[in-house]
Amino acid sequence: MALNFKDKVVIVTGAGGGIGKVYALEFAKRGAKVVVNDLGGSHTGQGSSSKAADKVVEEIKAAGGTAVANYDSVEDGEKIVQTAMDSFGGVDILINNAGILRDVSFGKMTDGDWDLVYRVHAKGAYKLSRAAWNHMREKNFGRIIMTSSAAGLYGNFGQANYGSMKMALVGLSNTLAQEGKSKNIHCNTIAPIAASRLTESVMPPEILEQMKPDYIVPLVLYLCHQDTTETGGVFEVGAGWVSKVRLQRSAGVYMKDLTPEKIKDNWAQIESFDNPSYPTSASESVSGILAAVNSKPADGESVLVRPPKVAVPKALAATPSGSVVVDGYNASKIFTTIQGNIGAKGAELVKKINGIYLINIKKGTNTQAWALDLKNGSGSIVVGAGSTKPNVTITVSDEDFVDIMTGKLNAQSAFTKGKLKISGNMGLATKLGALMQGSKL
Amino acid sequence: MALNFKDKVVIVTGAGGGIGKVYALEFAKRGAKVVVNDLGGSHTGQGSSSKAADKVVEEIKAAGGTAVANYDSVEDGEKIVQTAMDSFGGVDILINNAGILRDVSFGKMTDGDWDLVYRVHAKGAYKLSRAAWNHMREKNFGRIIMTSSAAGLYGNFGQANYGSMKMALVGLSNTLAQEGKSKNIHCNTIAPIAASRLTESVMPPEILEQMKPDYIVPLVLYLCHQDTTETGGVFEVGAGWVSKVRLQRSAGVYMKDLTPEKIKDNWAQIESFDNPSYPTSASESVSGILAAVNSKPADGESVLVRPPKVAVPKALAATPSGSVVVDGYNASKIFTTIQGNIGAKGAELVKKINGIYLINIKKGTNTQAWALDLKNGSGSIVVGAGSTKPNVTITVSDEDFVDIMTGKLNAQSAFTKGKLKISGNMGLATKLGALMQGSKL
Repeated sequence: MALNFKDKVVIVTGAGGGIGKVYALEFAKRGAKVVVNDLGGSHTGQGSSSKAADKVVEEIKAAGGTAVANYDSVEDGEKIVQTAMDSFGGVDILINNAGILRDVSFGKMTDGDWDLVYRVHAKGAYKLSRAAWNHMREKNFGRIIMTSSAAGLYGNFGQANYGSMKMALVGLSNTLAQEGKSKNIHCNTIAPIAASRLTESVMPPEILEQMKPDYIVPLVLYLCHQDTTETGGVFEVGAGWVSKVRLQRSAGVYMKDLTPEKIKDNWAQIESFDNPSYPTSASESVSGILAAVNSKPADGESVLVRPPKVAVPKALAATPSGSVVVDGYNASKIFTTIQGNIGAKGAELVKKINGIYLINIKKGTNTQAWALDLKNGSGSIVVGAGSTKPNVTITVSDEDFVDIMTGKLNAQSAFTKGKLKISGNMGLATKLGALMQGSKL
Repeated sequence: MALNFKDKVVIVTGAGGGIGKVYALEFAKRGAKVVVNDLGGSHTGQGSSSKAADKVVEEIKAAGGTAVANYDSVEDGEKIVQTAMDSFGGVDILINNAGILRDVSFGKMTDGDWDLVYRVHAKGAYKLSRAAWNHMREKNFGRIIMTSSAAGLYGNFGQANYGSMKMALVGLSNTLAQEGKSKNIHCNTIAPIAASRLTESVMPPEILEQMKPDYIVPLVLYLCHQDTTETGGVFEVGAGWVSKVRLQRSAGVYMKDLTPEKIKDNWAQIESFDNPSYPTSASESVSGILAAVNSKPADGESVLVRPPKVAVPKALAATPSGSVVVDGYNASKIFTTIQGNIGAKGAELVKKINGIYLINIKKGTNTQAWALDLKNGSGSIVVGAGSTKPNVTITVSDEDFVDIMTGKLNAQSAFTKGKLKISGNMGLATKLGALMQGSKL
């Protein structure tokens, strides 16, 4: 079935031509009300006229669609969002598309080259997203697209300014995806390869033909649809080809009494991607590293920060109803029981406990985390470090955890002997056992 | 043997305390002349005093080292570099370490929160690097460190500003690494996990103890040493653990007449990382994609943009003397012959040809690139797309390429029949055959 955007309000920046125009036309064709923003500037940021946006609005209206023009700079993002509010009463989808280039080798770059590219790409996307954010939160719906570039992801000669700010957008998207998740606000990033005002001066015609906007726009429409769950993704797209990009982290090496010479000696192993992990949040990254270090590896040992086999299925991370079983961990049974109790009376537990647990279970040299949120909504439990900062972090072996939770091992005694490590809110830790027997709460 | 930095001039920003101070002390201990920069501000960017930097300089001098204090803001980076020039006559190593935090949930973020974090992290690192750049180019030596964060790489609640600008530094490093390579200027990025003024307010003490600067600094010293070849790398480091991070790209899917619905249908394959690639520059990324698309895959086919097995060894990419053989490609023989000719009279060839070739050899549904630089130095040939923009791009099957280069197939005829595709400078393409018989040039 065709994906439609009936009555969704879409802002497209830089929509006077190129890809931006095709976004606007396509969203309008599928039922959206579109704010066509374009300053009318050239691709080096000079000049301004309202004609480009007006023409696109006329074209949409002629085809029976709904659109309004806006001529503000993205640096005044709140004005563009205000146009959406005034004309259509809201904003559902924001396509940060406006861009300029100021290519120059780094040794010749002026502060003006740097500042202008910063202001249009990073500051502009920030201003728009920020102005739209609370409206999206209130409606419990939002879709934001950041436009990055291979020049940002991988670097490119003569584009230190552009590449830097294109990567800033990936960073912004990373955090907005996490902050927006609970409010159904998704943020994704595309790195398009497309012919536009920006590229037409540097690419030969036969290559340009393959790189038309029609090969970019469908991905953005898919990502912005209300039924699409993807968020925090980065995609390279162009010429009919779509792929996903993510960060891959080597297993790394643990080194006691670190020195530069020791790093030199272990370099091959540091660079080895034989047992990689794929952190999805800063807390997952940091808690994973600390868990690895806490497992007391040998000097020079390559540490599996997160066993590659227990990747958390997407759906699981988002719902309290997914399986919390990790093969080989007896703790899985305990967490399944807790999950059952959350399912039965999650709201009550949240009210009484009001805290987030990160529980690191050690098994040999591996460590696996479970995140137990008894602070938000009606509670949730997921495999992995979760996306929210825990109030208390508990680290314990698989065996001891089961013994403690089933009453065979006294928690206080385990803590005193160093078998049970607790950081953060100790009071919350003492409530954990009670989760097993709901009646005690 | 201990890595020493005798007479190297090192600038460390934000060196009045925390990790910055330890950098300064350690570089000085190993023979470097250090500019200890610190504004003396608090970690939220307020206030200013010269005491912090002065104390570190005193400590270095008391231990017999050489150092000078500087109190300028990183936004006035040229002044800090000028201190290095005035005091020590140059700058060899730049540690962009200064930072501030303005954590706040995105819905409450003010433009001031955003701007300040931008100015100190991204603008500051740009200003310092830019001011140092041409001095480094002249000396044919430079080492630059960017300080990123897991909050940038993976996102973090309440750090949309910080995370965005920490990722901007990765983007800046990506391009500086490429632009600096030919002048022996290396740029690497670290994402440290360390206790400092920045983190002491949010981490429990027992975690902080594991996260002391002594577990970060050795990596930076290693990366900045004159014998270290690493550049463009991103590293997570802390608590005795060091790992490398890189971007991984899925094989992706080719879709004719792209629609959002088609993307939806192919989503699982788009997200599949079964046959990933690891582009190292924008040109490699884009040329790889275009090569894949040019191989005319079937609709919905997952395209191996770059066969994962032919990863180019680091050393190879940097030297014309590495093997140019890729298993299964008969073209390997041709490129080996060309390599021999470059070895014999590269300077002469560069003078006569003065161009860079990207040659995409198709084999079944795979495409493998060779980059032939007959423009710079005494010429080079590498497996892969190379790091410089080609003047001409040639795409041809493995079989036809061998036939053309050995005189069995007429190049003009192959071009007319569409077997040989050329974009860019056609004149250069006609010179390619001559490379086989040096005498004809």
